[in-house]
Amino acid sequence: MQIVVLAGGTGGARFLRGVRAAAPEAGITAVVNTGDDVTLHGLRICPDLDTVVYTLGRGIDEERGWGRAGESWTVKEELAAYDADPAWFGLGDRDLATHLIRTRMLDAGYPLSAVTAALADRWQPGVTVLPMSDERVETHVVVTDPEDGRRRAIHFQEWWVRHRAALDPSAFVQVGVEQARPAPGVAEAFAAADAVLLAPSNPVVSIGTILGIPGLRDALLASPARIVGVSPIVAGSVVRGMADRCLPAVGVEVSAEGVGRHYGGRRAGGLLDAWLVAEDDAADVPGVDVRRVPLLMSSPEAAAAMARAALDACA
Amino acid sequence: MQIVVLAGGTGGARFLRGVRAAAPEAGITAVVNTGDDVTLHGLRICPDLDTVVYTLGRGIDEERGWGRAGESWTVKEELAAYDADPAWFGLGDRDLATHLIRTRMLDAGYPLSAVTAALADRWQPGVTVLPMSDERVETHVVVTDPEDGRRRAIHFQEWWVRHRAALDPSAFVQVGVEQARPAPGVAEAFAAADAVLLAPSNPVVSIGTILGIPGLRDALLASPARIVGVSPIVAGSVVRGMADRCLPAVGVEVSAEGVGRHYGGRRAGGLLDAWLVAEDDAADVPGVDVRRVPLLMSSPEAAAAMARAALDACA
Repeated sequence: MQIVVLAGGTGGARFLRGVRAAAPEAGITAVVNTGDDVTLHGLRICPDLDTVVYTLGRGIDEERGWGRAGESWTVKEELAAYDADPAWFGLGDRDLATHLIRTRMLDAGYPLSAVTAALADRWQPGVTVLPMSDERVETHVVVTDPEDGRRRAIHFQEWWVRHRAALDPSAFVQVGVEQARPAPGVAEAFAAADAVLLAPSNPVVSIGTILGIPGLRDALLASPARIVGVSPIVAGSVVRGMADRCLPAVGVEVSAEGVGRHYGGRRAGGLLDAWLVAEDDAADVPGVDVRRVPLLMSSPEAAAAMARAALDACA
Repeated sequence: MQIVVLAGGTGGARFLRGVRAAAPEAGITAVVNTGDDVTLHGLRICPDLDTVVYTLGRGIDEERGWGRAGESWTVKEELAAYDADPAWFGLGDRDLATHLIRTRMLDAGYPLSAVTAALADRWQPGVTVLPMSDERVETHVVVTDPEDGRRRAIHFQEWWVRHRAALDPSAFVQVGVEQARPAPGVAEAFAAADAVLLAPSNPVVSIGTILGIPGLRDALLASPARIVGVSPIVAGSVVRGMADRCLPAVGVEVSAEGVGRHYGGRRAGGLLDAWLVAEDDAADVPGVDVRRVPLLMSSPEAAAAMARAALDACA
């Protein structure tokens, strides 16, 4: 059995761990958002790819949900002692080795997909981890500066990490997306898939960014597999992250139904064959098989049960 | 009073600390070897510049004589876990922040002299620290490979750190030296100097490399100041480092007299007006005022006394 999962960071990574547990014999391909990627201190940082690989490779800090277990922050402290901007990004010492290797390989001309495979070789995630694209696509957020009232676009990481998403976003812009193509292996994975799952990741800045890569959506829709989405909204709230800050900016209601309709039914020009919502939620998405299942990934077992329900909906 | 000191790493840094203590009112300029510089893991590393700045800025690991006090090695361990070569270089976490900032500034187009000044701003060394050149000059060592018997050139750091100078050097080659010029400020410092000192650094791969920069030796000799050298050889042995592995390769005897004659008397086409040797050593260097003084920098006070003797010889 071949499974493809579209995923962002922490939620996507935990869901992938559930898929791996639910289908240990399957070939699993993760297509991961790289719109959060950023270059800081000369280092190329790919937060979602790293979160996925660390989570599946038993290197993640489980409590934080990102970065390395047993992390230390010496380099970050030293950079601050030099007044080197930015100081707001969580650059851990262990994590930094990953960024150093990635940066050096990219500078040497390797595409991000090859770099990701080389890094994953250490972690043995048990899943083929692909960036959505080898081309650089970076999400910027259009905000109104509270100091001078001017609109400006800031990098997603600045909005997310530095401002804790406190500035109202009026739009999300994927810089570079016009020149991007799906990474090698993405279209092939869709074509060979028996199941395609949309992880309960941010529908705007994770799944939405992946789907915005020219050609990727068409390759997805050409898949013979059923496409099943998992709602990141449970009982009207985001489980994790700040999708509630992102959905209104694209005119989507913060609800399981709102996100389901945003993705849309496949037969009506959308994506979904089925849509998993939490037991207490209701969703009417025309043409889509909506199923109510427990949707809190409170443990690896709970994530595996969710994945099993999603795979059942693909059958 | 204006003093210029030509210096390499640990010995040069400690001698500079002595000069600062001996002449607290003087303007001191250090012209520092950059032939040991190397790019590893994508980071531009300047061991001698960092040793000088850390030593004068109270950041040095006093016992090791290089790198930062209270250093940790997390990134290095992580790089090794990825099998990222080379694993033999001592890349500390604190130190790494310096390399990150330097690399980023160089990539942005700043010359090494400007980068060095920016980094020194944190450390307040009390001395103007100049790289010998803004151009990249890297010392390579011609050795005979013990495995296949072939001669090849390896980077100085590989010879020094990885092989602990165990491979016999048949030559030292300064790659890039033909295109190099003295860094901004070097010739001006010589012209304005009241005293020029050659620190007891390695005469071949530290002082020799500095003197090999086209135009630098002439600028030095044009100085109105007396030029005084301090022997790195005491009682026929190197005090620190591996000058005894370097001197024979350039045909120089490992002795205070050998090094003094290698530098040569200024009036005979060499450099020196005076040459300080240890109390137990004897040296006859034609045309040069040879003085016997204690030459072990066993403490900052001993280094200051040495510096005082050197400045006395400039008077």
